[in-house]
Amino acid sequence: MQAFFTPRSVAVIGASREPSKLGNIIFSNFVASGFKKLYPINPNADEILGIKCYKSILEVKERVDLAIIVVPAKIVPQVLEECVKKKVPSTVIISSGFSETGEEGAKLEQQLRQIIAKGNTRVIGPNCIGIYDAYSQVDTLFLSRERCGRPKKGNISFISQSGAVGSTILDVLYSKGIGISKFISYGNGMDVNETDLIEFLAKDKTTRVIIAYLEGLKSDGRKFLQAAKKVKKPIIVLKAGKSEKGCKAASSHTGSLAGSSRIYSAAFKQFGMIEVENWEELLDYALAFSTQPLPKGNRVVIITDGGGFGVLAADEAERLDLTIPEPSQNLKKKLLASMPSYVSLQNPIDLSGDADAERYDLALRECLASKEYDAAILITLFQVPTLDDRVIDYVIRAKKFNKPIIVCSVGSSFSEERNKKLMEAGIPVYPTPERAVKALNALIRFSKK
Amino acid sequence: MQAFFTPRSVAVIGASREPSKLGNIIFSNFVASGFKKLYPINPNADEILGIKCYKSILEVKERVDLAIIVVPAKIVPQVLEECVKKKVPSTVIISSGFSETGEEGAKLEQQLRQIIAKGNTRVIGPNCIGIYDAYSQVDTLFLSRERCGRPKKGNISFISQSGAVGSTILDVLYSKGIGISKFISYGNGMDVNETDLIEFLAKDKTTRVIIAYLEGLKSDGRKFLQAAKKVKKPIIVLKAGKSEKGCKAASSHTGSLAGSSRIYSAAFKQFGMIEVENWEELLDYALAFSTQPLPKGNRVVIITDGGGFGVLAADEAERLDLTIPEPSQNLKKKLLASMPSYVSLQNPIDLSGDADAERYDLALRECLASKEYDAAILITLFQVPTLDDRVIDYVIRAKKFNKPIIVCSVGSSFSEERNKKLMEAGIPVYPTPERAVKALNALIRFSKK
Repeated sequence: MQAFFTPRSVAVIGASREPSKLGNIIFSNFVASGFKKLYPINPNADEILGIKCYKSILEVKERVDLAIIVVPAKIVPQVLEECVKKKVPSTVIISSGFSETGEEGAKLEQQLRQIIAKGNTRVIGPNCIGIYDAYSQVDTLFLSRERCGRPKKGNISFISQSGAVGSTILDVLYSKGIGISKFISYGNGMDVNETDLIEFLAKDKTTRVIIAYLEGLKSDGRKFLQAAKKVKKPIIVLKAGKSEKGCKAASSHTGSLAGSSRIYSAAFKQFGMIEVENWEELLDYALAFSTQPLPKGNRVVIITDGGGFGVLAADEAERLDLTIPEPSQNLKKKLLASMPSYVSLQNPIDLSGDADAERYDLALRECLASKEYDAAILITLFQVPTLDDRVIDYVIRAKKFNKPIIVCSVGSSFSEERNKKLMEAGIPVYPTPERAVKALNALIRFSKK
Repeated sequence: MQAFFTPRSVAVIGASREPSKLGNIIFSNFVASGFKKLYPINPNADEILGIKCYKSILEVKERVDLAIIVVPAKIVPQVLEECVKKKVPSTVIISSGFSETGEEGAKLEQQLRQIIAKGNTRVIGPNCIGIYDAYSQVDTLFLSRERCGRPKKGNISFISQSGAVGSTILDVLYSKGIGISKFISYGNGMDVNETDLIEFLAKDKTTRVIIAYLEGLKSDGRKFLQAAKKVKKPIIVLKAGKSEKGCKAASSHTGSLAGSSRIYSAAFKQFGMIEVENWEELLDYALAFSTQPLPKGNRVVIITDGGGFGVLAADEAERLDLTIPEPSQNLKKKLLASMPSYVSLQNPIDLSGDADAERYDLALRECLASKEYDAAILITLFQVPTLDDRVIDYVIRAKKFNKPIIVCSVGSSFSEERNKKLMEAGIPVYPTPERAVKALNALIRFSKK
């Protein structure tokens, strides 16, 4: 499996000179990333982008670690056969036109299965966009970087049955500045499936959080669940195809049998996975796990300069059964010593609409240093005139308490520039109080696992 | 009430020369907006920003339509008394330090009530940020435009008990390019309350949608509900203070008795209001009502270039009991005539990852022209290489069918530039399939009311 992500030599079967062709975009990615041992395969070209072209992978004398197949479905069996013969350890089949299209395609896919059964080649796909590895820069995505940004290096790995969902989320991760380790779109999952992938990512050193978009399982359900249970890293799952109509659509999309929503949900929960309701939640939770330590308990302090956002955060915290205890008399005394009398020192701690950075600093430091709280929800609305940028430094400094700090802040460019600074320093920022509290709740539930 | 929004003459009591003072920011807003009849009131200044200053509003000889009071709480009774004496029809009290601070402040507020009982002055506040009217440019917000953008002209009006929630949402509306008519933060709602405001907005010609952030009602609950029921425009409500802790926080925030969540929710529903769970949903729904016609039925077509997003949309639609019927054989035939055979013509209609603008045009036109669908969810993922910008024109052109079109599209700058064009043309765009479907569902439910 490792050869998929850190190949020393790469062949692109179906590499093309025409810029509009997928085989051109994919080959260009590898050239642009500076891969040295590149072998374009195309019987009708002598060279592509200045690199010598081969008629077949069998013509390549050197060892090939990774082959990417991007030729019409009907030719795939033949070139895959050659890959097996060449003893390529890892192959990604981008081409579509297999089990997702019906009976005919399913037969063709069956043929592929028989071919790989004869050798030691592992296959990702078919009907997928393949791999993006932010560290090695393996990039089989046939989407231009202008349209689909590639996230920077980070510790989230992402497996997706759907290429479009995958690429859209990658593009969003890129725009939010959230880093990833590996992205794998595995499409029909004919050989490498979600079980293989989570087992691999469980051991992967640059992966701290696993997120997954699934329609139906490509592997044996029990095996998948058992494998997931063994993984100590958080696995966050967005499951599509929960409805009758959705299920039908999933079948023609990735050839998946999506199956009953309730059974899946119950199984995910029982086997320690975290199920989410939409892709925003998938990223919300991933961001929290990616940046924050696990809390030791569920006692949360909510600190705000906007009373209303504090109320909404408290509502959500109570709905999720988090504890939001009032500060002790002793702690209140410490806070009140340097704050005006009109701040509200219950919990939420409402620093009031004229809050300055010093009030935030004091409240955050004293609450997290105390034994009274395990985590903080910090609402910093930068619309108020008194809140200056030192608050950013103070929040970053509070990381030393090794307790989760989740920020809620939103607005136009003035606020978003400040939120970006927090994000770059590893402090997750959410637009609504509810999303901030839910993300913290995910950390708390997982830490109890 | 009208004088609050279209005053011909404005007095700012507590106008100040010091840039950091609220009285300076508010007065500057009016100067910057080009109001001609402006009267700064401050006993210690001769002129402010080049405009003659008065020691008291009683010194002003001309009629004053709107007075804004931004002086310390203890002086408010005196200056309000003068406003009543001067027969100012509309007064906004920005100052805080009243019922939200406890018994002492409540007494002071009671004093204000007695003062206005003697005259015909209507009062918004105290403890609020007041009014922003995008048409008249009345702007009592003491928040700089750098930190808190002001939305352009539009047809959404927004009432908020909380100033911070209000200003944050205004800032978000500004950044999303969504226009509004009137914003009113009414704080403690001592005189003008939510009932007065919705009755006023019901008749307001530039208001098509009313959105509200409420903690507890400031008016008699039955009166409010009866008033809401009479309003033919959609009223979308975000209710905070649903939990015990949240309720307590609301009390120290705007002096509200938030009360039981379930009773409120049931009442909102019974009286035809639309309750939402967070501010994102508040804006999501507002945007749909603000731009789209009401559908005549609940038959929805989902058109997508990303299979996975189609599945997620279908899941959500089924969860919400929307109908997503398959196209008739006749309609399928029309579509297939100009499409490759591998597109999926069930519903969701999956135009496939190589969809171009022409496929979207055909699918959207034929489905909306037919009698088979009442509305469309259109998923346009611009990450795929084949989708060109003509799709934007085609979607805009499809407005002629007078059926709701809700778009789901998201990504980094490439996608967001295109989404912005759609938004500017009055096509609402949502980042997740679920949010798109929920917004459409709100339209459908309301149209059945």
